[in-house]
Amino acid sequence: MPARILVLHGPNINMLGLREPEIYGSTTLDEIDAEMKALAKELKVTIETFQSNHEGRLVDKIQETQGNFDAIVINAGAYTHTSIALRDAILSAGIPTVEVHLSNIYKREEFRHVSFISPVAVGQICGFGLESYLLGLRAAAATTRE
Amino acid sequence: MPARILVLHGPNINMLGLREPEIYGSTTLDEIDAEMKALAKELKVTIETFQSNHEGRLVDKIQETQGNFDAIVINAGAYTHTSIALRDAILSAGIPTVEVHLSNIYKREEFRHVSFISPVAVGQICGFGLESYLLGLRAAAATTRE
Amino acid sequence: MPARILVLHGPNINMLGLREPEIYGSTTLDEIDAEMKALAKELKVTIETFQSNHEGRLVDKIQETQGNFDAIVINAGAYTHTSIALRDAILSAGIPTVEVHLSNIYKREEFRHVSFISPVAVGQICGFGLESYLLGLRAAAATTRE
Amino acid sequence: MPARILVLHGPNINMLGLREPEIYGSTTLDEIDAEMKALAKELKVTIETFQSNHEGRLVDKIQETQGNFDAIVINAGAYTHTSIALRDAILSAGIPTVEVHLSNIYKREEFRHVSFISPVAVGQICGFGLESYLLGLRAAAATTRE
Amino acid sequence: MPARILVLHGPNINMLGLREPEIYGSTTLDEIDAEMKALAKELKVTIETFQSNHEGRLVDKIQETQGNFDAIVINAGAYTHTSIALRDAILSAGIPTVEVHLSNIYKREEFRHVSFISPVAVGQICGFGLESYLLGLRAAAATTRE
Amino acid sequence: MPARILVLHGPNINMLGLREPEIYGSTTLDEIDAEMKALAKELKVTIETFQSNHEGRLVDKIQETQGNFDAIVINAGAYTHTSIALRDAILSAGIPTVEVHLSNIYKREEFRHVSFISPVAVGQICGFGLESYLLGLRAAAATTRE
Amino acid sequence: MPARILVLHGPNINMLGLREPEIYGSTTLDEIDAEMKALAKELKVTIETFQSNHEGRLVDKIQETQGNFDAIVINAGAYTHTSIALRDAILSAGIPTVEVHLSNIYKREEFRHVSFISPVAVGQICGFGLESYLLGLRAAAATTRE
Amino acid sequence: MPARILVLHGPNINMLGLREPEIYGSTTLDEIDAEMKALAKELKVTIETFQSNHEGRLVDKIQETQGNFDAIVINAGAYTHTSIALRDAILSAGIPTVEVHLSNIYKREEFRHVSFISPVAVGQICGFGLESYLLGLRAAAATTRE
Amino acid sequence: MPARILVLHGPNINMLGLREPEIYGSTTLDEIDAEMKALAKELKVTIETFQSNHEGRLVDKIQETQGNFDAIVINAGAYTHTSIALRDAILSAGIPTVEVHLSNIYKREEFRHVSFISPVAVGQICGFGLESYLLGLRAAAATTRE
Amino acid sequence: MPARILVLHGPNINMLGLREPEIYGSTTLDEIDAEMKALAKELKVTIETFQSNHEGRLVDKIQETQGNFDAIVINAGAYTHTSIALRDAILSAGIPTVEVHLSNIYKREEFRHVSFISPVAVGQICGFGLESYLLGLRAAAATTRE
Amino acid sequence: MPARILVLHGPNINMLGLREPEIYGSTTLDEIDAEMKALAKELKVTIETFQSNHEGRLVDKIQETQGNFDAIVINAGAYTHTSIALRDAILSAGIPTVEVHLSNIYKREEFRHVSFISPVAVGQICGFGLESYLLGLRAAAATTRE
Amino acid sequence: MPARILVLHGPNINMLGLREPEIYGSTTLDEIDAEMKALAKELKVTIETFQSNHEGRLVDKIQETQGNFDAIVINAGAYTHTSIALRDAILSAGIPTVEVHLSNIYKREEFRHVSFISPVAVGQICGFGLESYLLGLRAAAATTRE
Repeated sequence: MPARILVLHGPNINMLGLREPEIYGSTTLDEIDAEMKALAKELKVTIETFQSNHEGRLVDKIQETQGNFDAIVINAGAYTHTSIALRDAILSAGIPTVEVHLSNIYKREEFRHVSFISPVAVGQICGFGLESYLLGLRAAAATTRE
Repeated sequence: MPARILVLHGPNINMLGLREPEIYGSTTLDEIDAEMKALAKELKVTIETFQSNHEGRLVDKIQETQGNFDAIVINAGAYTHTSIALRDAILSAGIPTVEVHLSNIYKREEFRHVSFISPVAVGQICGFGLESYLLGLRAAAATTRE
Repeated sequence: MPARILVLHGPNINMLGLREPEIYGSTTLDEIDAEMKALAKELKVTIETFQSNHEGRLVDKIQETQGNFDAIVINAGAYTHTSIALRDAILSAGIPTVEVHLSNIYKREEFRHVSFISPVAVGQICGFGLESYLLGLRAAAATTRE
Repeated sequence: MPARILVLHGPNINMLGLREPEIYGSTTLDEIDAEMKALAKELKVTIETFQSNHEGRLVDKIQETQGNFDAIVINAGAYTHTSIALRDAILSAGIPTVEVHLSNIYKREEFRHVSFISPVAVGQICGFGLESYLLGLRAAAATTRE
Repeated sequence: MPARILVLHGPNINMLGLREPEIYGSTTLDEIDAEMKALAKELKVTIETFQSNHEGRLVDKIQETQGNFDAIVINAGAYTHTSIALRDAILSAGIPTVEVHLSNIYKREEFRHVSFISPVAVGQICGFGLESYLLGLRAAAATTRE
Repeated sequence: MPARILVLHGPNINMLGLREPEIYGSTTLDEIDAEMKALAKELKVTIETFQSNHEGRLVDKIQETQGNFDAIVINAGAYTHTSIALRDAILSAGIPTVEVHLSNIYKREEFRHVSFISPVAVGQICGFGLESYLLGLRAAAATTRE
Repeated sequence: MPARILVLHGPNINMLGLREPEIYGSTTLDEIDAEMKALAKELKVTIETFQSNHEGRLVDKIQETQGNFDAIVINAGAYTHTSIALRDAILSAGIPTVEVHLSNIYKREEFRHVSFISPVAVGQICGFGLESYLLGLRAAAATTRE
Repeated sequence: MPARILVLHGPNINMLGLREPEIYGSTTLDEIDAEMKALAKELKVTIETFQSNHEGRLVDKIQETQGNFDAIVINAGAYTHTSIALRDAILSAGIPTVEVHLSNIYKREEFRHVSFISPVAVGQICGFGLESYLLGLRAAAATTRE
Repeated sequence: MPARILVLHGPNINMLGLREPEIYGSTTLDEIDAEMKALAKELKVTIETFQSNHEGRLVDKIQETQGNFDAIVINAGAYTHTSIALRDAILSAGIPTVEVHLSNIYKREEFRHVSFISPVAVGQICGFGLESYLLGLRAAAATTRE
Repeated sequence: MPARILVLHGPNINMLGLREPEIYGSTTLDEIDAEMKALAKELKVTIETFQSNHEGRLVDKIQETQGNFDAIVINAGAYTHTSIALRDAILSAGIPTVEVHLSNIYKREEFRHVSFISPVAVGQICGFGLESYLLGLRAAAATTRE
Repeated sequence: MPARILVLHGPNINMLGLREPEIYGSTTLDEIDAEMKALAKELKVTIETFQSNHEGRLVDKIQETQGNFDAIVINAGAYTHTSIALRDAILSAGIPTVEVHLSNIYKREEFRHVSFISPVAVGQICGFGLESYLLGLRAAAATTRE
Repeated sequence: MPARILVLHGPNINMLGLREPEIYGSTTLDEIDAEMKALAKELKVTIETFQSNHEGRLVDKIQETQGNFDAIVINAGAYTHTSIALRDAILSAGIPTVEVHLSNIYKREEFRHVSFISPVAVGQICGFGLESYLLGLRAAAATTRE
């Protein structure tokens, strides 16, 4: 059976392409999801994508991975830096999680340099725009093959 | 067309008048909204008010401003000090935002002295109770006239 | 009339027994609630239990205590360390609140050593697993008898 | 008798309009004082304005409020962040004080984020340029009517 | 054989009831010991109580638990925040230890928020006055039954 | 020749007796100076007293001690915590300096706990109201007798 | 009845005159006690002096003041900077306490700049050698006359 | 012309496979270089690889990129956290640089959480072992195609 | 027209030669001014020198540069480390400013290591005694020639 | 006369061999003392050993060295990190002191990384178990031969 | 004999003129060395210049000054902020050292504000581009004349 | 076969005896090596000694221990406090390492109080001059005998 991967988008990522293009570029969330699906096909994995501005819904969604998904790719957006609840949900889910960010968070405000998710993720990829997601999907797929 | 201003109330502000009157006074949220509407009329702007205890709903609401509002007056309550998601939503909205607080946050616990919203707002008004909102509306209206 | 006590469970506590048993043990949330009800009967108090992964819903729930509950027992989970909104809701509710934790938070990551809830609670009980809840209920019941 | 309000301008504010227009705009101190006087008339209060680059003279001036003024509007400029002497003078004066700033101090260098005056003022207004002063005068006038 | 529990009282706790009743209440140490003995009987454990103002004597006493006691309930008072020697003694004793405090240490001076004992105790109970001791005894008794 | 001692009063001390009596008591500056003169007579030293709200004038005055005074008693008020210029002036003066404070600065805001003057003074006396000055004069007189 | 004052000397103060004369001078503890007694006579108060290297004994001694003494003069030596137990004992004793130090602690290592005793004492006197004790006795005597 | 990419390995990376396999796995540096070359072929780019334990030689090598390389993939190892010289060399080189790490540096000692290189790199990839390098090469190749 | 340079001396610099020669040497302020004038002649610039112990007067003087001076050489003494007002005045003046210090401030107390002036100056020269001033004049003259 | 060396063991060291063997090994205090005596014989020095859990008794003992001992070897255990009183006693004793630790304190909790004793000791030896004591005795003996 | 001065250039300074001209200007290292030689001739001193990207070679070079040079002018570049080895080498060399920087390091990233070299240098000159070197040579030459 | 021990000397240690004798004494590196060889003979181990000012060469050398040495004695000098590369090399080498320092690093500048090497070494010996090396060799030899 092909590996099943959940792709999570955190708050404000639904505004991509509309918002601060000098930081995030002009790609929209729909375009990201389309490119992710194309790559998933190539990598022979299946993906589901989900976006929410609500910390609680993201936690709910991660809890639902049990038995339904083999790995997570997550861009938690602003919750990366403030949400211990997401961290605990990932720990509890117990499947490999890859953290991605569109922008290079180490070039931005100091409060964006610390991630509650990194220490419970397999690894982190940031700074490559849409490419961060694609590399993250590759990393997640590789992890499920180990 | 008159400027359209969104007035946002964050968590626990629906308990105003019932809660800790020595800090917040006895005015209720309904009374604030009524006074705001009266002043809006005087200033020849239109306002919509919205309260939520949910960070995610406040983010949703700010995202909906696009094309519908010209400025925001926000009392983010406790989320002022913890929510990067709100900050990002305001940045993304790209319209002038005025931060208000009923109490003087600099007279209270140290964790209330730092606001994630101030650096992305036009300015901040705090400490004047109901008057903070009214001054905030004046400031927002002035901004839309510039 | 018997004292009415609200028992609140924060994010990810619905995953208990499934999740990291080396930290939280194998008891499930249903088992905790059952044991709490049995003890409530013994202590001649009534309880209602509520779990949510959503900070906003926990705030909503605390606001509804007014006139309906005499005390709160809360395990706010990850929100313990990040939510000023919960703290403000507890302050606003104005009834005695007992903070409990299954694990000993002082044996874990440093960011779990600080609680926004402790300073507005009557007291804190942590480290005894399910027993933390039972002791917390006793403490809450004792408080309502004072 | 109409309320009497002292408007204090701290160091370098006499250079307004000449200095860093990208931060402070092109309005001069004389124009601010003129607009303040016009608004004072509208609000039926009397004002006196005073500017000094000398911390000691500002302290002297605040001490002279006793019996002569009912409220203070102060833009302490750079002394906001360094002068405990001004803070003590305001405490000693014992009349309501409104802190104003032309620029949004939370968008600037970190040492401008802390104010010795805020904790002894009624409230703070910053970021609205000349409008900060006008809103400050309204706030001060409102305070004297309470 | 019934579990044997050592109840340790740190410095100044012999002054209870005489001292700062607004923080510690009016219960005396003798009353606490009497209530503890009554509860011990109910729980079918035996207890010995010991108070000292001397850090060294408390360390001596903990060392004597070997073979003589099955658990410790300790209110280390001021030494909670300064004594690594007590911490080491508890580690060395190797029996379950329950940390209790009469007052809610998180409502007091910041230096009382850190405990050298918490990380080597099973758990912590604070803020419930005499009830903290009783809950602590229950927790200790439960621990010895595991 | 009798020792000559300069008694310096910093900013806002001219408001004593009028200002925050719960912190500083009801004694006026004139009364302090009168008591100091009476004690000086008893101790067989001569004193001159000087008050200013201006940091620069206090520096000027300390520079004038050269050849004219044998010791300084200084209550630098708010400048205690912010003025390196005063510290340098005292170092430059090269005569024994006694630091006094009416209130116990260690019971007040944290920024009042640090003194730039202490490390260059012979010693510090604080917390005894008017008595702080009298003890300071005794200390200064004793120093000049060594 | 003359006021009764307890004079407490902390650890290593029994080595005075033998130890580091460049910091503490050549006066011995016996000489200090003799000078204190002479001054006590002059001030018409009675004193008892006590030295110990043991934190616990100093706490014991302070507890014994109840009903026996009207004020305390304490040089807690090294325990000044580390003993919360002494602080609590002084709070509990509830009589005015004057903190003295032979050396100017603000000229020495940074860990000597913080005193756990200052915030619970009436005031602090440091830096004048033997004279610190004599001034401290005067301050204590004055306090008992208020 | 195919893009030319320099792959830099910092100190101790020549010991890979021999060293701490629980952190770095059993792959050797030669195997990494072989896999990188295979992928380079697939991506139609050319690569050169270089390892040194000397900070200075790594700086020299980066300076030689001018005109010879279009992008850099760097695993600076321990120098990531200590070398401003490498950071300056990368800035000076002025070609896109991708930072990679075999291990997830955010799961390790705190001093490994800060990178001097991240803020001058396009982005960072860490935690995927050998896969980090392969993803890094993809990212670098993508950058040169933009 | 020759460049006109204002040379500013801050607090206590008028005591040079009289004060702590082990730090500042035996040169007097008059001698510095004389050497500066001689060098000015050689460099074909004109200078005016001004000393004050008053922060406010130094701010006044800097404001008067407009149209009258082409550059500033400033040794702000103790105000270097505490005066944001001076920093703002220099920013407002908008002419090149060279910061000089007689002593090497990085060899002295830690609070002298931070300068509010450096970030708004062209550059800093410290540690060379009188030579610091002469080098500073050369630097200022060079700046006006650019 | 052979050099006389005092060997001091701090709190909980009497539990050695019984306590946490994974940190401290299985050697008992008696075995350490026996090995120390054997080595003392070889080095032609005499030793006395002393253990106490009481900070005060350790201070007393160090004070008694005067005239009786030529050097000290001290393992202050937990008091290493909290006792300024021991530090002062060592300073006062004025004889060379060698600090030893069984475990490598830099591999343990952060609060064990700081020693109040190191800066007043000749040197420190840690991490070699029993061997730390033997090396410490050699170091102390060497010091007395200088 | 003319004074012999060693001019040291640290890492990346060989890229000057090629690299980030908005920070460092367009002057090349060869041009700096040429201007330095011209000024050396004017000042009647001899100089040798040396650049390396290797911390170790810079240390080697400083060690070779013994007997061969009378002073050092050093721009340690990035090693300024990270190299204690260079600091120790300068201390060991025991000849006057002048620290120079092309850019004003206090206008740049915070990690460039701290220099390990300043406290062991005679003084520091920064911010004047090539002129910093020339002023540094003057300062070094002046030092050798003292 | 006798144990083979590598003795590493870090930067500037080749200048011993020539450099700051008040800190390091007058012994030269050659004398240390000679004394080490004599003691090695007595302890029946073989040693090789190596000094370099280059961090990279020290790393290279530690990597060469594999199969050739049984233990390391290292005085990393300034690199102790800045080199994570050395720490990683020691970890990678996987043989017991003893850290030595001539001076007592805890009596010196604060940046010398932290060692990157201590946590990966068996233990640390500092403060005994040449004797530190000899004790270190004994410790290393003892480790290889375990």
